[in-house]
Amino acid sequence: MKQSKSDLTKQYIVERSSAVFNTKGYMGTSMQDIMDATGLTKGGLYGNYKSKEAIAFAAFDYNVKKVMDRMSKMIVVEKNAPDKLNAILNFFKSYYFEPPVAGGCPILNMAIEADDTHPGLRLKVVEALEALRSSLIHILKKGQSYGQIKADADVNKFATIFLSTIEGGIMMSKVYQDFRYLRDCIAHLSELTEQIKT
Amino acid sequence: MKQSKSDLTKQYIVERSSAVFNTKGYMGTSMQDIMDATGLTKGGLYGNYKSKEAIAFAAFDYNVKKVMDRMSKMIVVEKNAPDKLNAILNFFKSYYFEPPVAGGCPILNMAIEADDTHPGLRLKVVEALEALRSSLIHILKKGQSYGQIKADADVNKFATIFLSTIEGGIMMSKVYQDFRYLRDCIAHLSELTEQIKT
Repeated sequence: MKQSKSDLTKQYIVERSSAVFNTKGYMGTSMQDIMDATGLTKGGLYGNYKSKEAIAFAAFDYNVKKVMDRMSKMIVVEKNAPDKLNAILNFFKSYYFEPPVAGGCPILNMAIEADDTHPGLRLKVVEALEALRSSLIHILKKGQSYGQIKADADVNKFATIFLSTIEGGIMMSKVYQDFRYLRDCIAHLSELTEQIKT
Repeated sequence: MKQSKSDLTKQYIVERSSAVFNTKGYMGTSMQDIMDATGLTKGGLYGNYKSKEAIAFAAFDYNVKKVMDRMSKMIVVEKNAPDKLNAILNFFKSYYFEPPVAGGCPILNMAIEADDTHPGLRLKVVEALEALRSSLIHILKKGQSYGQIKADADVNKFATIFLSTIEGGIMMSKVYQDFRYLRDCIAHLSELTEQIKT
């Protein structure tokens, strides 16, 4: 299906503003910032999106997709659950040094910004976090069914610890500007993965 | 020492605006929000603080102090290192249900907002996070010297895992609006504490 000119403009706006939103935040990004990033006038932007919020929603989806696509590529080549979990850890290592999107983890950033102030954005974050959590649980359960992961491992709890520790580690390394914190978190999760292997 | 009228006004402004900053964020809080929270005019605010940034800095200090004071009170009554670590976990449990400051963990919130965009705020976050990390390391080392914590435990790594997992758990529980995630993180850290006990 061919994309219309309007679709292409919308896509261009999102591509150009996605890093700004992830770096400065939804509240911190002004229409002027989006005008600067796209070279479009305010009228040009409002002709394609009805509000800054609509651009922020589209930019968030774009950033999450970019992150998930790179992660999926690293997972899919691995043959068993423990290797897939380690591939996710390697993904987050590569995340620090070669971020797919400038400004850190879009889910973490939006979670902190949206939790108290913006019900619509909060639900979008829940959706993205739930997609990540579900794919972890899927890997773990499949690993159990193939006898790669211990049958008595609590997969829900494991997925929560995994995500919390990684996101907390990203926060610490970003704010300290030192990889050491995320490195220690990744090493810990690698040990936990080792413990639930059969 | 008696406080001057100007000191009292500054303190009033900070007390009234601290929850707004922690909920809406530094960028998301406008001078109008601070005027609404304090009942002061813009002139009244600028007569006491030279910028919104100066109020944000003072509000951040106030919020961090409030959090650290409550945590310290829970730690100090415990006699040994493992109990002190569990007191910190209980503090974070109480944090979810009875937050000392509205809007979640001020350090986490400010970390996410400041890391890419605001070098001055980033350094303040590092200072606060470092105070938290140091007090954890202090507890762990003292525990080692009294034979309560295993001598071969890597206290730096333990402190990093502890803080990352807690902060990640707060993020998840706040965005999902479900205590379960933080609860699982706390249970995991309680197990890790058990493992390094002598």
